[in-house]
Amino acid sequence: MTAANGSSAVNARVVVQQCLHATLQVCPPQQECEAQWVEIDRGMVIYVCFFKGATEDIIPKMVNTLMNIKLCETDSGKYTSVLELPGNVLIVPQATLGGKPKGRGMQYHGNIGKEDGQKLYASFVSHCEKELSLAVKCSEAGTEVKHGTYGNRQVLKLDTNGPYTHLMEF
Amino acid sequence: MTAANGSSAVNARVVVQQCLHATLQVCPPQQECEAQWVEIDRGMVIYVCFFKGATEDIIPKMVNTLMNIKLCETDSGKYTSVLELPGNVLIVPQATLGGKPKGRGMQYHGNIGKEDGQKLYASFVSHCEKELSLAVKCSEAGTEVKHGTYGNRQVLKLDTNGPYTHLMEF
Repeated sequence: MTAANGSSAVNARVVVQQCLHATLQVCPPQQECEAQWVEIDRGMVIYVCFFKGATEDIIPKMVNTLMNIKLCETDSGKYTSVLELPGNVLIVPQATLGGKPKGRGMQYHGNIGKEDGQKLYASFVSHCEKELSLAVKCSEAGTEVKHGTYGNRQVLKLDTNGPYTHLMEF
Repeated sequence: MTAANGSSAVNARVVVQQCLHATLQVCPPQQECEAQWVEIDRGMVIYVCFFKGATEDIIPKMVNTLMNIKLCETDSGKYTSVLELPGNVLIVPQATLGGKPKGRGMQYHGNIGKEDGQKLYASFVSHCEKELSLAVKCSEAGTEVKHGTYGNRQVLKLDTNGPYTHLMEF
């Protein structure tokens, strides 16, 4: 397996989509308790999956790339980064992205273990929050990072003006 | 670049998501004419991108794999194929999936040319339609294939019970 960036091993796979609005369940309905949701308006949805061997040191570069790459469409139809749009960010843990076809099923043997994955995911979220909080345009506009609960079912509703789906590997 | 299936060149990249309902614009609003949309209920959304060098002969195997791989969740929480669910299929042409990061932007030099891409896309759609029409469960349940307009902006609204995002390369 070769990463899109040319290195020989993939540590993380990310799919990015653009949205006008997105809603994600962060806690399923429970006895005497309704489901809990987070939502964002215009911005970027980041589906993320970590592979075995991924370590904390990939997170800063990964987040820096995702926050600064020009995938977001401005009102004038040009492309800019989510930090410069300024846009919101919704992070969705998505272990299925690590799947490899085997016969008629999918195998996930390359995925990172649950505990390590949870740590990397938490670090990824906190680095995204930090980048947004340091970006003047984002803090002025009040754009936010929201994120799903690692290991949960990611009940997602997405409204786009074109998802502009991109794949990135790190 | 190495395909997820282990071969040395990628001809097509596909992202698959599961949906409860999805709506896609197939014609933008024009003078004296409202936007036109297609929609599906429960089933699979297939985002597809072809690379330079892709030829017609990859289509039957690609469609057969996608229609028969067990990515769809049944009511009992098991996984089955879209043909056996039976589910609907929404095909979204998505050239952005061919992007490679270059500096702070994305380049699409590996993408197939417009004319060849359009032909492969049309063939992909028609093979999906054929597979669904031949599947007894699909024809009995009246499930359908809907698809976006190649080259257009893909204005998409998606409602999921968990997108279960998968990447597949051919």
